[in-house]
Amino acid sequence: MKKRFLMTPGPTQIPPEVLLAAAQPIIHHRTAEYSELFARVIEGLKLVFQTENDVLFFASSGTGAMESAVVNLGSPGDRVLVCSSGKFGERWHQLAETYGLEAELLSYEYGQPVKPEDIADALDDGAGYKAVYVTHSETSTGVVNDIEAIGAIVKDHEAVLVADAVSGLGSAELKTDEWHVDVVVAGSQKALMLPPGLGFASVSEKAWALAEQSTIPKYYLDWKKARAGIRQEKPTTPFTPAVSLTVALDAALKMMREEGLDSLFARHRAMGRASREAIKAMGLELFSPDDERCSSVTSVLMPAGVDDGQLRTLMRDKYGVQVAGGQGSMKGNIFRIGHCGYYNYSDIIVTITALELALRELGHPLEPGAGVARAEEVFAEEGS
Amino acid sequence: MKKRFLMTPGPTQIPPEVLLAAAQPIIHHRTAEYSELFARVIEGLKLVFQTENDVLFFASSGTGAMESAVVNLGSPGDRVLVCSSGKFGERWHQLAETYGLEAELLSYEYGQPVKPEDIADALDDGAGYKAVYVTHSETSTGVVNDIEAIGAIVKDHEAVLVADAVSGLGSAELKTDEWHVDVVVAGSQKALMLPPGLGFASVSEKAWALAEQSTIPKYYLDWKKARAGIRQEKPTTPFTPAVSLTVALDAALKMMREEGLDSLFARHRAMGRASREAIKAMGLELFSPDDERCSSVTSVLMPAGVDDGQLRTLMRDKYGVQVAGGQGSMKGNIFRIGHCGYYNYSDIIVTITALELALRELGHPLEPGAGVARAEEVFAEEGS
Repeated sequence: MKKRFLMTPGPTQIPPEVLLAAAQPIIHHRTAEYSELFARVIEGLKLVFQTENDVLFFASSGTGAMESAVVNLGSPGDRVLVCSSGKFGERWHQLAETYGLEAELLSYEYGQPVKPEDIADALDDGAGYKAVYVTHSETSTGVVNDIEAIGAIVKDHEAVLVADAVSGLGSAELKTDEWHVDVVVAGSQKALMLPPGLGFASVSEKAWALAEQSTIPKYYLDWKKARAGIRQEKPTTPFTPAVSLTVALDAALKMMREEGLDSLFARHRAMGRASREAIKAMGLELFSPDDERCSSVTSVLMPAGVDDGQLRTLMRDKYGVQVAGGQGSMKGNIFRIGHCGYYNYSDIIVTITALELALRELGHPLEPGAGVARAEEVFAEEGS
Repeated sequence: MKKRFLMTPGPTQIPPEVLLAAAQPIIHHRTAEYSELFARVIEGLKLVFQTENDVLFFASSGTGAMESAVVNLGSPGDRVLVCSSGKFGERWHQLAETYGLEAELLSYEYGQPVKPEDIADALDDGAGYKAVYVTHSETSTGVVNDIEAIGAIVKDHEAVLVADAVSGLGSAELKTDEWHVDVVVAGSQKALMLPPGLGFASVSEKAWALAEQSTIPKYYLDWKKARAGIRQEKPTTPFTPAVSLTVALDAALKMMREEGLDSLFARHRAMGRASREAIKAMGLELFSPDDERCSSVTSVLMPAGVDDGQLRTLMRDKYGVQVAGGQGSMKGNIFRIGHCGYYNYSDIIVTITALELALRELGHPLEPGAGVARAEEVFAEEGS
């Protein structure tokens, strides 16, 4: 009997309660029943986003939500600052270029965080940036950027701050309002514990003011249409929503509320720390920084002499544990353990065990059980 | 005990087999397992679309798929012909205007079909139209346009023919290749028997040639990115797909293949005819044409003296049967019975019964049982 452990940074494991909520008979979206659900979900999202701003809602993947934050804020020729140290930072850059923005790129090595002081310098150079695009949790490497520090810089400038929190929302701390993050985009398939298919964007007043000037055409991802739907007496979406995923979201948000945000972030921090400590105890090398913020994804350098495909296939096929490989230039050089969402100590313990067993089987020398023992110790310290 | 009958033209009823397929534990989308599923689903879609063209795939509602057919084919200033006789024809027009196309509008009264000869005249006027946008099944009224006749006209011109088949695909005949329809867009929540959240577009070689010239920016809905994903050795999507809906689609396509397209279209024609005959036998007036093609949605003029809200609320709350009201200028004047997808004679019989009972309760005079008896007769003639 194989039990499967999906340890990738999206899609992530989904609670059975949420899967079954999505399997309820469908309801129509132009009804009081749907409006009540939709209003409740929006309120729940505001809690998780830690914002009083509108949280807009799309039937799309996270990339659709990212695109919405370019086409609704931008006008061709606008100068924007894009910070990138991974695949999803590059996606901001591609989106900005696609839609005719003049993007200045602050580029860092994969695995490195953005330096807030570089943003301060760039904003002070008088270039008149309209927006700063950053990644909160860089899924491709596990880096979580210091959004608090970046927000404290950007808030005093004309530019709005846009953060891709697709893999970070609900797993790595992100205080949208307190940290002055004007736009936070997210997707359903990470810490929100849902299948992929919903995209979100929270939008501050400062961002709405910029959106008022935006001339890039938009229709399906039009924020104003989405806001008009939310603000109706009976809230709804401009176009047919992904009804079953919305019902599932309601169930997932209920679970998140019951756990409480503080517990939820503590749980993720513990999983991140236990993963990092276990990796080090095994004599492997972390690729993502050894940093408390990195609570969504732990990325690890592939040990010398170990083949990426062999390792991950063995872990998956023999032990049921699926970790992710590297993306882009990292392919073959790192692997990634996702732990954002419906995960706790048990998943990390199993993953580290499978990693140890597989590495031993592939002839990589390590002290048996050193990693899993260290992980257990961390969970004991953290109160699991 | 109330049993619920969702008789709206989207969302539509979903087979329990499909709901449970979507409730399976999630799988990762960058795996052989997903590629096999995805490839099988694309082949299944080609059968339903009746095409050899690529069928592209988006995590979006039907409107997202429609938008893709504007931004991927168009360049600002292109002349296009938009045919509209309802809310979704108007959506083509809004999309064309949003993205800077020069749209010539052939507009018809709600409830009337497009006249193919008008398209012939327009294309012959030398305006150099790049595309003709039409609606296959106009969900807002129940009209199904004569796409075969329109295709026969457009094929000899430079213009590509784009049909919105969101509510028609799989319920009203649409022979994409045989009828020379270059682009067919569809959504998941109608005859494909799924929750909303997937959008599709089939694209002919003629349409790809136009897409090559298109200069409207696109990213999330970029057809070329989607095609590149499909054509990989291990097919995939450029961005995270709506995995659970794709798994559900696989289950739904299996059911459609088992039924067979001929049976499937015969079943829908029978439901359309039975609905129309029952409505007439009740002394009510059809709003959609009394036309065999109208096999997705039957729209009915609200009888004089009967209040729309009262009628639909009574049907829903007392009899569990939810029909749709009118949209836009039709609000309050018509109601719509959706029967595209997971429906058969039983749903129509129940709906007509609930309609008769509710109308009698609201004091509208009718011969008890005349409608349901007539519907039964039609199903007997049609072999159900």
